[in-house]
Amino acid sequence: MAVSLREIFEAQSVAVVGASRDPFKAGHQVVRTLLSVGYAGKIYPINPNEKEILGLPCYRSIAEIREPLDLVVVCLPGKAAVTVMEEAERRGDVKGVVVLSAGFAETGVPENVEAQQRLAEIARRSGIRVFGPNCIGIMNPETKLVTGFHPGVTLVPGNVGYVTQSGALGGSLVTLALSQPKPLGFARFGHVGNMCDVSNVELIEDYGNDPAVKVILVYLEGVKDGREFMRVASQVTKKKPVLVLKVGRTESGARATLSHTATLAGTDAVYSGAFRQCGVVRVNTMQDLIAGAKAISMLPRPRGNRVCVLTEAGGMGVISTDEVEAGGVLKLAPMSWETCEKLTALLPPMAMVCKPNGYVDTSAAAMAREFGEAMRLILADPNVDMVVFNSIPPTFLPPMDVAQAVVPVIKEFDKPVVACFTVNETVVEARRYLEENGIPTFDTPDAAVRALAILTQATFSQGYPLADVPVATHPILERAVAEGRHLLEPEALDFLADHAIAGMPYVLAKTREEAQRAARELDGPVALKVVSPQVVHKSDVGGVRLNLRGPEAVGQGYDRLVDDVRRAVPDADIYGVLVVPMAPSGPEFIIGMTRDPQFGPTIMFGLGGVFVELFRDVSFRVAPFGPDVALDMIRETRGYRVLEGIRGEKPKDVASLVELLVRVSQLAAQYPQIREIDLNPVRVYEKGYSILDARILLDI
Amino acid sequence: MAVSLREIFEAQSVAVVGASRDPFKAGHQVVRTLLSVGYAGKIYPINPNEKEILGLPCYRSIAEIREPLDLVVVCLPGKAAVTVMEEAERRGDVKGVVVLSAGFAETGVPENVEAQQRLAEIARRSGIRVFGPNCIGIMNPETKLVTGFHPGVTLVPGNVGYVTQSGALGGSLVTLALSQPKPLGFARFGHVGNMCDVSNVELIEDYGNDPAVKVILVYLEGVKDGREFMRVASQVTKKKPVLVLKVGRTESGARATLSHTATLAGTDAVYSGAFRQCGVVRVNTMQDLIAGAKAISMLPRPRGNRVCVLTEAGGMGVISTDEVEAGGVLKLAPMSWETCEKLTALLPPMAMVCKPNGYVDTSAAAMAREFGEAMRLILADPNVDMVVFNSIPPTFLPPMDVAQAVVPVIKEFDKPVVACFTVNETVVEARRYLEENGIPTFDTPDAAVRALAILTQATFSQGYPLADVPVATHPILERAVAEGRHLLEPEALDFLADHAIAGMPYVLAKTREEAQRAARELDGPVALKVVSPQVVHKSDVGGVRLNLRGPEAVGQGYDRLVDDVRRAVPDADIYGVLVVPMAPSGPEFIIGMTRDPQFGPTIMFGLGGVFVELFRDVSFRVAPFGPDVALDMIRETRGYRVLEGIRGEKPKDVASLVELLVRVSQLAAQYPQIREIDLNPVRVYEKGYSILDARILLDI
Repeated sequence: MAVSLREIFEAQSVAVVGASRDPFKAGHQVVRTLLSVGYAGKIYPINPNEKEILGLPCYRSIAEIREPLDLVVVCLPGKAAVTVMEEAERRGDVKGVVVLSAGFAETGVPENVEAQQRLAEIARRSGIRVFGPNCIGIMNPETKLVTGFHPGVTLVPGNVGYVTQSGALGGSLVTLALSQPKPLGFARFGHVGNMCDVSNVELIEDYGNDPAVKVILVYLEGVKDGREFMRVASQVTKKKPVLVLKVGRTESGARATLSHTATLAGTDAVYSGAFRQCGVVRVNTMQDLIAGAKAISMLPRPRGNRVCVLTEAGGMGVISTDEVEAGGVLKLAPMSWETCEKLTALLPPMAMVCKPNGYVDTSAAAMAREFGEAMRLILADPNVDMVVFNSIPPTFLPPMDVAQAVVPVIKEFDKPVVACFTVNETVVEARRYLEENGIPTFDTPDAAVRALAILTQATFSQGYPLADVPVATHPILERAVAEGRHLLEPEALDFLADHAIAGMPYVLAKTREEAQRAARELDGPVALKVVSPQVVHKSDVGGVRLNLRGPEAVGQGYDRLVDDVRRAVPDADIYGVLVVPMAPSGPEFIIGMTRDPQFGPTIMFGLGGVFVELFRDVSFRVAPFGPDVALDMIRETRGYRVLEGIRGEKPKDVASLVELLVRVSQLAAQYPQIREIDLNPVRVYEKGYSILDARILLDI
Repeated sequence: MAVSLREIFEAQSVAVVGASRDPFKAGHQVVRTLLSVGYAGKIYPINPNEKEILGLPCYRSIAEIREPLDLVVVCLPGKAAVTVMEEAERRGDVKGVVVLSAGFAETGVPENVEAQQRLAEIARRSGIRVFGPNCIGIMNPETKLVTGFHPGVTLVPGNVGYVTQSGALGGSLVTLALSQPKPLGFARFGHVGNMCDVSNVELIEDYGNDPAVKVILVYLEGVKDGREFMRVASQVTKKKPVLVLKVGRTESGARATLSHTATLAGTDAVYSGAFRQCGVVRVNTMQDLIAGAKAISMLPRPRGNRVCVLTEAGGMGVISTDEVEAGGVLKLAPMSWETCEKLTALLPPMAMVCKPNGYVDTSAAAMAREFGEAMRLILADPNVDMVVFNSIPPTFLPPMDVAQAVVPVIKEFDKPVVACFTVNETVVEARRYLEENGIPTFDTPDAAVRALAILTQATFSQGYPLADVPVATHPILERAVAEGRHLLEPEALDFLADHAIAGMPYVLAKTREEAQRAARELDGPVALKVVSPQVVHKSDVGGVRLNLRGPEAVGQGYDRLVDDVRRAVPDADIYGVLVVPMAPSGPEFIIGMTRDPQFGPTIMFGLGGVFVELFRDVSFRVAPFGPDVALDMIRETRGYRVLEGIRGEKPKDVASLVELLVRVSQLAAQYPQIREIDLNPVRVYEKGYSILDARILLDI
């Protein structure tokens, strides 16, 4: 049985294979780093040509070590790494192997790809867990275990768990965290490299179960199995926040990640949807990742998203306020009339209080006591969930005085407060004091607000696990697959109707007279649409006629439609002509289903028409999902405002749209034969909706 | 005649009124700062109750000083400041006054507002220039002149000119600039405070003419006179780049700026358009402002926008690549096949070259010589305009070796190169070395790319001055103004036609029969629209009928329209019914003109329909403008893609739309009586356009 990752993080002994006396070789630096940080366990340098390295006796191979061996770090290339792995397997006691060397699958060279496959095979068979290859491995500040060769690494214990697909970025993030006024320490660090065995997802799961980790930070280029990621993440986020910096946002960026770690990045928008669906908070920069971690690590959870901007400098206050409003997560706190009155009475005459509400500029004339009292009045207001406190203390007011005035007040309340004291050396001491007293500080007023926004998202995000839907088939699908074709439109409508999705009532007319009779029964203007497996884009070949009224128009429409299609597609089998009522007008949406290489069946929703293309105002979620996720996915788009009723229009039937999305997501999960569903457009009314066109493509 | 601002920056003597022995008072700190930085001129502390301050003899008033006096710094409140100003006027030799004290117009208290007005009056009458009140004034590192009381101020000469509306932000920006690996020095610093006399705009103009300033950085909350700003900025940007951090982007942020410096921020989108129109580059954060200034200050101008990402660490390369593509200004350089081949031959086998093209990941296996050679191959490719070089040097490769390998190569070429060496202390020395050799370095790979984007924008931006259009009037406008009403639709159409803007052909029918005759002549379906000064929203009262064909339908439509309008608006004077042909279908746009409180006549363009509201996909420019600006304003919107022909549609007549925008912008400038123009929708075809509805509102 495979060992748990925690056992590897707690390894009591490490062998370094490829250890060297040459100070410029990785095999030297790993040993030196372990010694310099004071690793608590045993260190065994392995090099058949040396007797001693850095004062430690050298072994010819790991087989020679007579004592128990937990972890092996391999600094040798390709095939040599495979040999070490085989030796580890023979020993029987090795729990983990970290392969530092690059030059495996990421090169695309067949023999290197094979060497990596061999590592993976031995890992599976032996239960030994492999990090890498092409990675700097792991760090555990508690036991001072470091497998990488990062110069000047600092191990400050804390409660952050890092998962990274880039050694460089991982190292940079740790360094950035440690350079804060009060260093933000960490509990675990894992760089997964090429992920031949241990994956980023498994590391997230492990940290989720590890009480030493309070917040998980992930630098992500892509996941191999999106559904497994969601299974893990939706569980972990119930226990602790997961913040992800996902790169490869753009097409070129995604292609660059492919060459980096041989992981296909997939569609970035699907990742965004999946993150939201499983409660993961996405951030866009390294700075925000650390800012968010500081806030989560140091602050209580907010009760809501209402923030008061308390500032001593107008410009900084405006920047914070812009960020509150533009960020979309927070809003200015609607403080009570009473609080505003009391603040006005307290603060100097040039102070600007509650203009706008939630914004308090004390002016540089306020003194330390006034900052403390203002903080108390603000925090005591039940309409305030959080405070951003900005100050560039004037010379006559030492920053420490201000810090010491607000700290005891903040401690009386259980509400998050962040600070931006800027910008020169005079505030260094005050920032450290604030952080030592649980108040995270930031370099800029916008970064402080973003930290609160991330904290708020992490607090209120919900993770929804993917339900298991039994795979099924359906006679309509079976028949079409047997005939090697996609569904015809009437089949698609019947199939949807069988799953409680109401399309349009229709008649499949085989003759002009049938069409006229159908139109008469439908009573009102009708549309005619050709039904033929050879005709995919009906409109392009004259296969659609709209808004026909009365037997004459319908009959003529039928004849012309058939003529036009026959002329455009001479070999088309025309099964008939669909007669459907013209749908009432209403805003149009698009609902699509595709199969994502990472995430499987994925549902898209957005405003219809050219706007999908122009504005990408669409949201994605992974199927299947329930009504909560469907509603969230609708709300994520600006199209939601159309549904709420824009320009005096009445609100539309969002509930029916939610139900439709949920049902389509279930179909997608249930029938793997379906490759693609395209309901476009779907018109939504005050009550119900119409699906004006339904295409279902199969895997044929 | 008023003195030039440069004379004030070069003041040879400074009196500090309100000087104090109390180290916590501003009046003490100003004197102490002047002494500690080593101001080259004379310093006169003024305080009637002291004999000596900080070793300098004290004067009772500025009148007592027998030697020439250039500059007066006032640390006294309200009325006392006015008295000092009067004394300065009586002396006759004072060139400038800096009023540090707050508590003037920004308080909104009538007597404080009046004190500020008095300062302004005396300034106008005497020619003495006033900075403030409510400001920290000016700094000039050359002469070591500092009027503020910022603790620990450092004066490093350089070529940056700062204009700021916030003392705190201004100080923060300078500190941020000076904390770069090679401090980014400055030439001038000016904080304008309440701008009772010297404005931010005047300071921009002054720096524009000052050879000591190479790049101008502006922290902006708002301008008082938008057109004056554009006049100045469009001239200055021809000579040197102007970068602006404009805050108050959001509604709440704008309200906060109002309380800060009593400047109405105006519509942020209009500012964005105005900046673009006069060649100013807008940035969003303090960091980007400094990053852009570093790039401009240190680098040659790029020949184009094609950037190669050269990276030693995959993760950093991906972040840079994402930023290149997402930023919208730069693109990855399409390097030649030959360059890619040579790089592949040069670099280690695990390097990833030109996947995608323009992206080169050397991998950590590359050595110093290879970085140098790779840099040479890349810079020699004529398809490369710029390079971003990322490195987190591995232990076995000292960062200085890498820096020393690339510096001489970069010096052989006249192309901008920026670097991100991250992140811990090992790179500090290398970063300083790079910057001392003209290669700006940045903390993160995305910041490095943004610096190049700002440099590129500053290089290729064009400033277009506003033309002078003689004010005119027109009989149609005169008549309507005389009758106290807005233009009726046929008047609007005639007025537009008189200015070579083709509306629809129309007939104003007074009877049912006239409508029928008009429809017959127009040949094709028609629309009927009521014409009545009392009816503003025609559709709401049944005043519009669309798509009527044949005399019967037109006659019935006419009767019902008149009936419905009479019922809905019993006192409506119905002047007649407009009969117009139905316009062919086509994408719909909106063109609007409003008068902005800061910028005057302003034109808006965007996709029509609900999308203006949902996506704010509109652009603004200040009227009047020519075809270059009109085309840029169309291209700025995503609607431009619709005009290019989306989804296989043929391209639309952009040239005619450009002409239409130019003409509307001229009308806006020419006729101040017009308050608002609304052409909505304007349908654009492969050839020409139709204005389906034209509303012109007057100042009545």
